[in-house]
Amino acid sequence: MTKGRLEAFSDGVLAIIITIMVLELKVPEGDDWQSLQPLIPKFLAYIFSFLYIGIYWNNHHHLFQAAKKINGGVLWANLHLLFWLSLMPFATEWIGETHFAKNPVTVYGFGLIMCAIAYTIMENLILKNENENSRLKNAIHSKFKEYISIAFYILGIAASFFYPYVAIGLYYVVAVIWLIPDKRIEKSLKED
Amino acid sequence: MTKGRLEAFSDGVLAIIITIMVLELKVPEGDDWQSLQPLIPKFLAYIFSFLYIGIYWNNHHHLFQAAKKINGGVLWANLHLLFWLSLMPFATEWIGETHFAKNPVTVYGFGLIMCAIAYTIMENLILKNENENSRLKNAIHSKFKEYISIAFYILGIAASFFYPYVAIGLYYVVAVIWLIPDKRIEKSLKED
Amino acid sequence: MTKGRLEAFSDGVLAIIITIMVLELKVPEGDDWQSLQPLIPKFLAYIFSFLYIGIYWNNHHHLFQAAKKINGGVLWANLHLLFWLSLMPFATEWIGETHFAKNPVTVYGFGLIMCAIAYTIMENLILKNENENSRLKNAIHSKFKEYISIAFYILGIAASFFYPYVAIGLYYVVAVIWLIPDKRIEKSLKED
Amino acid sequence: MTKGRLEAFSDGVLAIIITIMVLELKVPEGDDWQSLQPLIPKFLAYIFSFLYIGIYWNNHHHLFQAAKKINGGVLWANLHLLFWLSLMPFATEWIGETHFAKNPVTVYGFGLIMCAIAYTIMENLILKNENENSRLKNAIHSKFKEYISIAFYILGIAASFFYPYVAIGLYYVVAVIWLIPDKRIEKSLKED
Repeated sequence: MTKGRLEAFSDGVLAIIITIMVLELKVPEGDDWQSLQPLIPKFLAYIFSFLYIGIYWNNHHHLFQAAKKINGGVLWANLHLLFWLSLMPFATEWIGETHFAKNPVTVYGFGLIMCAIAYTIMENLILKNENENSRLKNAIHSKFKEYISIAFYILGIAASFFYPYVAIGLYYVVAVIWLIPDKRIEKSLKED
Repeated sequence: MTKGRLEAFSDGVLAIIITIMVLELKVPEGDDWQSLQPLIPKFLAYIFSFLYIGIYWNNHHHLFQAAKKINGGVLWANLHLLFWLSLMPFATEWIGETHFAKNPVTVYGFGLIMCAIAYTIMENLILKNENENSRLKNAIHSKFKEYISIAFYILGIAASFFYPYVAIGLYYVVAVIWLIPDKRIEKSLKED
Repeated sequence: MTKGRLEAFSDGVLAIIITIMVLELKVPEGDDWQSLQPLIPKFLAYIFSFLYIGIYWNNHHHLFQAAKKINGGVLWANLHLLFWLSLMPFATEWIGETHFAKNPVTVYGFGLIMCAIAYTIMENLILKNENENSRLKNAIHSKFKEYISIAFYILGIAASFFYPYVAIGLYYVVAVIWLIPDKRIEKSLKED
Repeated sequence: MTKGRLEAFSDGVLAIIITIMVLELKVPEGDDWQSLQPLIPKFLAYIFSFLYIGIYWNNHHHLFQAAKKINGGVLWANLHLLFWLSLMPFATEWIGETHFAKNPVTVYGFGLIMCAIAYTIMENLILKNENENSRLKNAIHSKFKEYISIAFYILGIAASFFYPYVAIGLYYVVAVIWLIPDKRIEKSLKED
């Protein structure tokens, strides 16, 4: 099964998710600088989510580039990932609108952890299809990044009940961990 | 005629349909949990339609992967299918907003049956273009799934006049029937 | 210069244009059948514009499939076409909202004629790049369809000042003329 | 690393950016010509931004067509560019809504200069990956256009504090400079 259309469809959905978030930055009534002030938390939330979607696109890109073959299960695992990612604009707007209030930050963290779980499921399904000598399999055998991320999300969600900004900080740490595209895969691709 | 652009355009339209439905999940005013409550029926409707669009994308993907050639008729049959699918966000919002009221559920079912008919027309046109020994032709010669689906939709629409939740249940059964991507095609592709 | 990205970008823009028009079909407050009634003119306008965008996509598809090479001028001519097409959702909503009032129908016709002119400019630029024995050049040497369409649009715009429904009828005639994808090109491609 | 998906994702984001700007052209209440009048500044702002996004797409297209290889850094530099471009609909709406008031025009110019800087960073990263005899490297060794543009943007932003229309004029000059796709690259591609 060719992976071209899965990539094209995912690119389309991710491009739309990343762009509709900007629709939440409603233009102010006036033309003075003060009128931009209420937009600041929304803008910060936008930057944060843009970064996250960018990371997912980047890693998705690396993963499927290295994948040799996909099957029906991977198609559905990918749709499952896109489902959780599609809720990011909602969560982003809620944290922006409420100035990073507790409950919205909890919901945002829940969204992030579900995306991470969905991504890990998809990765596992792809790895299962690879044969024994697969470079991809050797490249991401450790899964350290996946597990540490989920641990940080759990910590973040717990923190969100008391200190939402600490939660945002923890979510941000995960972003930094993933910011550098999967060197493991990049290296293995070069060896080809 | 190459099928690449037909697939790319359909991917674009389906990606947008699946993503704009999430715009209906309007962010609540407050930041408490109660303020999320009115969103529950809308969220359920979103999940349901996401699943349906996902199924159509998946089967569309399988069908065109197996198709050897397409012609002008198939282009229009595909646009006809996309037209009915493009009405899904409207129907989804209506059932969500009215908490699955009778008339909206009837309209939703009507939309689903029109999509199913449009898909069947397109499938038939593709099959007509295939030559005698086409694996695709052998793979989907029975059309059992297509006919049983339309039967269930008719039952569902009838039920929607009295018990909308029964109708939703019947629509859901069809989703489950199609959830597993067309094994018939997948198998035949492997034999190539 | 490869035409792949021009096609992909145009597919993206056309897919979005065709889909955002459906956002104008605002879900009614109630759940009774009467509440759908005000949507009827909007829905008719949507069908009409969907058909038009579909026709443009279809002919765009045929034209670029046959084109051997493109240059910087064609890129800009294509963006020019996309600009006028991008105004279709605005014109569509206006005719729907005002129940096909005179001025909106005039504006709609003006949009259609600008699209037709932009398409013709692009076609000419592509033909200029083709060499002498180009099948594409032979296939669309007559340009009869292009000129008759523009004539009908002018008639339609004139009619819109008095009888907007006659104008819509004339615009519809052009749609029917183009509904059948460019047989001239399709035939010439088969001869290859 | 293949550049296909980077191009497809960028095409998707740019297609959406260019198209959602048209959503700001809200349909007027009435059907008379006067009701269109308040839309004129918004429409002019739309044309202006459409032109700018078109220029970026065009140059992006040329640059990546000529690029031999890309790496993780280029992926992020491209996302950085898309981030600033994604703010264009916001700035466009603000200048349109306020009839090109001072502060909005300053913000618009700031957005343009950030796009230009992001583009230059990306271009530099791509050039760094090219080998010594790269035609692309020879083609854009001067960077004159890049530097003159940034100079004009700085002038424009300074002017926006006093005469916003002069600022718009200066931004427009940059657009004209770039309107002609990068002849340097086009020429070098032909020599291949």
